Amino acid sequence: MSASLQINARWIITVDANDRVLHHHAMIILDDKIIDILPQDEALKYDAAEVITLDDHALAPGFINAHTHAAMSLLKGLADDLALDEWLSEHIWPAESALVDQNFVRAGSELAIAEMIKGGTTCFNDMYFFIDETASAASRAGIRVNIGIPIIDFPTRWAKDLDEYISKGLLVKDQFRHDALVNFSFSPHAPYTVSDESFQRIQPLMNELGLSMHIHAHETASEVTDSFEVYGKSPLNRLNDLTLLGPNLMMVHMTALNGEDIQLLAKNAVHVIHCPESNLKLASGFCPVSDLLDAGINVALGTDGSASNNDIDMLGEMRSAALLAKGVSGKADCLSAHEALRMATINGAKALGLSEAIGSLEIGKQADLFAINLNCIETQPIYDVISSLVYSANRSQISDVWVDGKRLMHDHVLTTIDELSVLERTKQWHQKIAPFHHFVSKNGVK
Amino acid sequence: MSASLQINARWIITVDANDRVLHHHAMIILDDKIIDILPQDEALKYDAAEVITLDDHALAPGFINAHTHAAMSLLKGLADDLALDEWLSEHIWPAESALVDQNFVRAGSELAIAEMIKGGTTCFNDMYFFIDETASAASRAGIRVNIGIPIIDFPTRWAKDLDEYISKGLLVKDQFRHDALVNFSFSPHAPYTVSDESFQRIQPLMNELGLSMHIHAHETASEVTDSFEVYGKSPLNRLNDLTLLGPNLMMVHMTALNGEDIQLLAKNAVHVIHCPESNLKLASGFCPVSDLLDAGINVALGTDGSASNNDIDMLGEMRSAALLAKGVSGKADCLSAHEALRMATINGAKALGLSEAIGSLEIGKQADLFAINLNCIETQPIYDVISSLVYSANRSQISDVWVDGKRLMHDHVLTTIDELSVLERTKQWHQKIAPFHHFVSKNGVK
Repeated sequence: MSASLQINARWIITVDANDRVLHHHAMIILDDKIIDILPQDEALKYDAAEVITLDDHALAPGFINAHTHAAMSLLKGLADDLALDEWLSEHIWPAESALVDQNFVRAGSELAIAEMIKGGTTCFNDMYFFIDETASAASRAGIRVNIGIPIIDFPTRWAKDLDEYISKGLLVKDQFRHDALVNFSFSPHAPYTVSDESFQRIQPLMNELGLSMHIHAHETASEVTDSFEVYGKSPLNRLNDLTLLGPNLMMVHMTALNGEDIQLLAKNAVHVIHCPESNLKLASGFCPVSDLLDAGINVALGTDGSASNNDIDMLGEMRSAALLAKGVSGKADCLSAHEALRMATINGAKALGLSEAIGSLEIGKQADLFAINLNCIETQPIYDVISSLVYSANRSQISDVWVDGKRLMHDHVLTTIDELSVLERTKQWHQKIAPFHHFVSKNGVK
Repeated sequence: MSASLQINARWIITVDANDRVLHHHAMIILDDKIIDILPQDEALKYDAAEVITLDDHALAPGFINAHTHAAMSLLKGLADDLALDEWLSEHIWPAESALVDQNFVRAGSELAIAEMIKGGTTCFNDMYFFIDETASAASRAGIRVNIGIPIIDFPTRWAKDLDEYISKGLLVKDQFRHDALVNFSFSPHAPYTVSDESFQRIQPLMNELGLSMHIHAHETASEVTDSFEVYGKSPLNRLNDLTLLGPNLMMVHMTALNGEDIQLLAKNAVHVIHCPESNLKLASGFCPVSDLLDAGINVALGTDGSASNNDIDMLGEMRSAALLAKGVSGKADCLSAHEALRMATINGAKALGLSEAIGSLEIGKQADLFAINLNCIETQPIYDVISSLVYSANRSQISDVWVDGKRLMHDHVLTTIDELSVLERTKQWHQKIAPFHHFVSKNGVK
């Protein structure tokens, strides 16, 4: 039987419903899809155009970064160790309002996409402006993306008012209608920057176009307090009253939640996107992941943007999620490595409505995966390969990445992005952005 | 003027009292010491036997891992995601009592030392058994070590009683008296496993031999509660009543502390060794790092052993420390990247009583340092090189490591350890240890 590609691997981490790990198996790919996974000695019946043998490697489903702002990679490390207000109002926003345009978003998206592919991410859920540039960059690089159509109640360089946010967003969506890698959601920034009227404009469009919604919410306790002052209710209850809660809603951060909130989320099958490193770095509060999982809520994982992380490394984010959930819940058996891996893969696919196509390595799914070399000092010995992946490995061990069966990284070398050019452009942007960096150390030394 | 080595680097991160970062400077090394740090164009007056130019790199003081159990690297990933009691009593202790001997400690220490050098660690503070093997392995590899002479009130394969723990420990100390890289402390395991009588035997020896003490304490709230039941006071107050508090005491973990405890620690200049990832993984509680720093206490950083982490990666540990302190304190400006770097370097040196010799890159100090390549997608752009190091870099970017001016890693290749042999021996040990691994996933699939 014919096939495009056969990959023989020491381990195949399927992330299927039974969490199966297969040893010495072969994955058979035809064009963009996985058509078989079977013991290597039974794979002779396939006559694959290419056979790759990875005896030291595990194959795993590509990571799905369920919340990021790719273009902000140009701002990574611009302003650290600052209180949230100062961080936003004195550093990030001034830099953004002065600099963010088509070119910024193109360069930042390319930098982020290069970093993501190198780190095994094969799909990302983005929220930013100039979405045509991010969509184009993803399409050129061959990475899968869910683009958020931004909605915010004030003008930016991207759009002047709600009408323009919507029309420009839908225009871009239309431009990419034939590109299978590029999907779209509506992305209202947050309940505190988007009015009820704006939500009410978006809602019928969501239904009509079959689009989901991707929104920051309950990021901090003060966001909830403020909402009570302005609206007399929490952001979550506001969205509920607007009849926006449902399985097509992805709520990001969600640190400040009470028991009733959690019941409401569970009842409505809302997806929660957990960004542990960003929540820590900005001291936003702790997402009660253990309680959310106990309530049966689908929790996916995101890195947030590089300005508040400062990387877009899903391998590290899984580790942070697993460790933090144990610390916060006080239960060392909370959020196992296996569950963290599900959050970074299949749960992200569910949140995006793509779990029939991606998020696990199973026959019939798209061939979105990475290979990681575990035969090194840092990850040996191996008792449970998923534990080694989550708790001991680092992303530099990821050697190869495929999306839709296309090899985007070949033995650590990107095939669709010229890394040196990206580095060069990044340094040019550094020159323009650096004036917005005003670092003073603890000891007063600049 | 003659010199052994001149290293020209893009950045030199000194971690001196003023946190200075020097650009395009040269470090001049003669034998084991740093004899000058000056602008590259002024370095012509030195005639170094070797000149290395690292235009994409930062030099930084080697990390000091202030608490680990090196040999436990063979157990990394043996038992994860379990409650502390089950983890210890059903997995770690049975494996240890069946397997830990000279050969285990030799193999485990070599694996750990290889991992540490590759990750930029140049000194580690160890606590385990068969300390002659760990000391020998460190000496052969050329890494600096502070060996804990173990004290525990029950017999192990290493020693049968207090007399033997002390005599065997001091014998090893004597064997290494001419080895400048190998230092010693007393390491009573913890207040709950060491009696007042045993502490009273050690104390005069500490004074007589000028040795410090390295002990686990206040790891969990229940340890403190239990101590009240047995002794009528907290472990800290017990050690205080035994007149053991002072600048030669390193207390590890310290999650369960009240305001009075913190005052007592500060008054006595006790060093706290913070192990954030281990505390998270075992759900031990949160060390109040922000309060400790505010009280002027010296806080150093350790990884703990690989069985509870599961790596011995100080770069990652700095990041976890900085992020976690913000989350726990609710202050995003708490524990900056700069402070985290101090905890991983000079603060560790202070804890070990070695701050005159190591912990920063300054003229007159030992040449213990690493070089890290920051010219890559993951760490560009760079606004503050210390932020990039702590929040964005990963250890695979570390290319070269020196201890006492000797190059232990040369462009990613270890010079004193045969990595392939270590990997081979590790896999042999895996065969013996694997029967102690009883993993059952959330879904019941083995």
